[in-house]
Amino acid sequence: MKGKVYLVGAGPGDPELLTVKALRLLRTADTVLHDDLVPSEILRLIPASVQIYNVGKRCGHKRVLQDEINDLMVALASSGLRVVRLKSGDPLIFGRAGEEIEALRSHDIAFEIVPGVTSALGAAAAAAIPLTHRRASAAVVFVTAHRASDNLASTSSPSKSEDDSGNWAKLVGSGATLVIYMPGQGHADIARRLMATGLACETPCALVSRATTPHERTHRTTLLDLHRAPQLAAPTLLIVGEVVGMGDPAAAARDFAALSLLQDNGNSLPAPFFKDSSPAGATPESR
Amino acid sequence: MKGKVYLVGAGPGDPELLTVKALRLLRTADTVLHDDLVPSEILRLIPASVQIYNVGKRCGHKRVLQDEINDLMVALASSGLRVVRLKSGDPLIFGRAGEEIEALRSHDIAFEIVPGVTSALGAAAAAAIPLTHRRASAAVVFVTAHRASDNLASTSSPSKSEDDSGNWAKLVGSGATLVIYMPGQGHADIARRLMATGLACETPCALVSRATTPHERTHRTTLLDLHRAPQLAAPTLLIVGEVVGMGDPAAAARDFAALSLLQDNGNSLPAPFFKDSSPAGATPESR
Repeated sequence: MKGKVYLVGAGPGDPELLTVKALRLLRTADTVLHDDLVPSEILRLIPASVQIYNVGKRCGHKRVLQDEINDLMVALASSGLRVVRLKSGDPLIFGRAGEEIEALRSHDIAFEIVPGVTSALGAAAAAAIPLTHRRASAAVVFVTAHRASDNLASTSSPSKSEDDSGNWAKLVGSGATLVIYMPGQGHADIARRLMATGLACETPCALVSRATTPHERTHRTTLLDLHRAPQLAAPTLLIVGEVVGMGDPAAAARDFAALSLLQDNGNSLPAPFFKDSSPAGATPESR
Repeated sequence: MKGKVYLVGAGPGDPELLTVKALRLLRTADTVLHDDLVPSEILRLIPASVQIYNVGKRCGHKRVLQDEINDLMVALASSGLRVVRLKSGDPLIFGRAGEEIEALRSHDIAFEIVPGVTSALGAAAAAAIPLTHRRASAAVVFVTAHRASDNLASTSSPSKSEDDSGNWAKLVGSGATLVIYMPGQGHADIARRLMATGLACETPCALVSRATTPHERTHRTTLLDLHRAPQLAAPTLLIVGEVVGMGDPAAAARDFAALSLLQDNGNSLPAPFFKDSSPAGATPESR
């Protein structure tokens, strides 16, 4: 009997940001194939009886090819095992899960996708940056730096192929918050290209390194000064847009001077007021 | 002593897609304020001793205003309580967390953001749609239908204000996968506007209703036929782009005929091959 493959998101780094389901699957798997970016704190949650394969592609040593990963996954599942393919973040965002799904389908292997907290959400939470905001950004774009630096200044027409699929000038010009995965260390290049598409040089941006781990670091700057950013430890993400300023306590404090004048500073519980305004019972729900 | 507010993502619906941290906080909170979209299966995980407030804004009854939610949250925390503000999906994606953070900061209340699996990832997992794909889409955009229908055909220049912040024609023209949150039932209108921006009428799209719950339903179609889609139960999401076709087993099967010719169909474990190619030990890792 064939086994089954679970394509599982490991979340942004903090083991507590695994989903309950991911944790259950890790504890009951026969074998786990994981990426380099999955931290050891998460791997330590896997029982000693479970076979673990590191199929990371970023080790600096000889790379494991995607086809090799597909073959291993298919072989393990075909031998009847319960396989967890563990990817950092969410499997369907820059995780090449599409190719793995194709391989599993072509070998008629049952699979299930278990979503995870994608890295952008971990970084935004760490830096308290709302990725959308009614006053500043009505959309958010996730993109990789590879695409960004290749195509940001492109003016070519939209296309579906890999070579020019990102017409990033359009994305940048839309006013959406931009989250750049894997920005690498070419900060000057990214900033130059973003500004070339029309983004103002004072646009706030934040580099977030190793978000949701004890080694988390955030560097807030502007596109103009991004080239001076320190070289932070990978994995990093770059968040670009007006919302980044809202995540900055110092910047926010300036806005609040005006805002707080409009607000009721009373700290008493407004329960009576809520009583009629919430259909489900504004006071605590009865159970 | 002041309490603390945890802005917590509840994930897309399945209680097992709560993070471990979210579950811990729900079990140790003094009080929980939740949105309508948080399913009862998740609320049932909260101990009976915890006060629960439904501050949902979509009940159809008299609405709870955002300012009222902010005031309640501030008042509860100011009285020393450990408050969980539970939002469906992730708090920083279309959750108005930005405004709640501003309120908390202006009242000097400690807070922490606990990211969650945003609904788009739940829907994509349910429908096995890779949101990015090396051959089809190098970026993904999250947007709401409100913005989409207001601005999709807009050609105005980018702006930061709420009224015209989304220049959706640009987003649509970028080739990125589009995930439309809260598409409502105006499918014909959304399809018309997407096609008006230049998307081909045969562009595949999928409506996903109540993803990751036992009531999950997916309807796959094209922009041309989107107006004929059934009225599925909320919450729904609309995913638009070439990647949707890759999530369709029938469509995928056609592609695999060619693909599988290129693949090794051997099911034996390629462990020896992996032995030298993975620095961390290609055979199962020793522990």
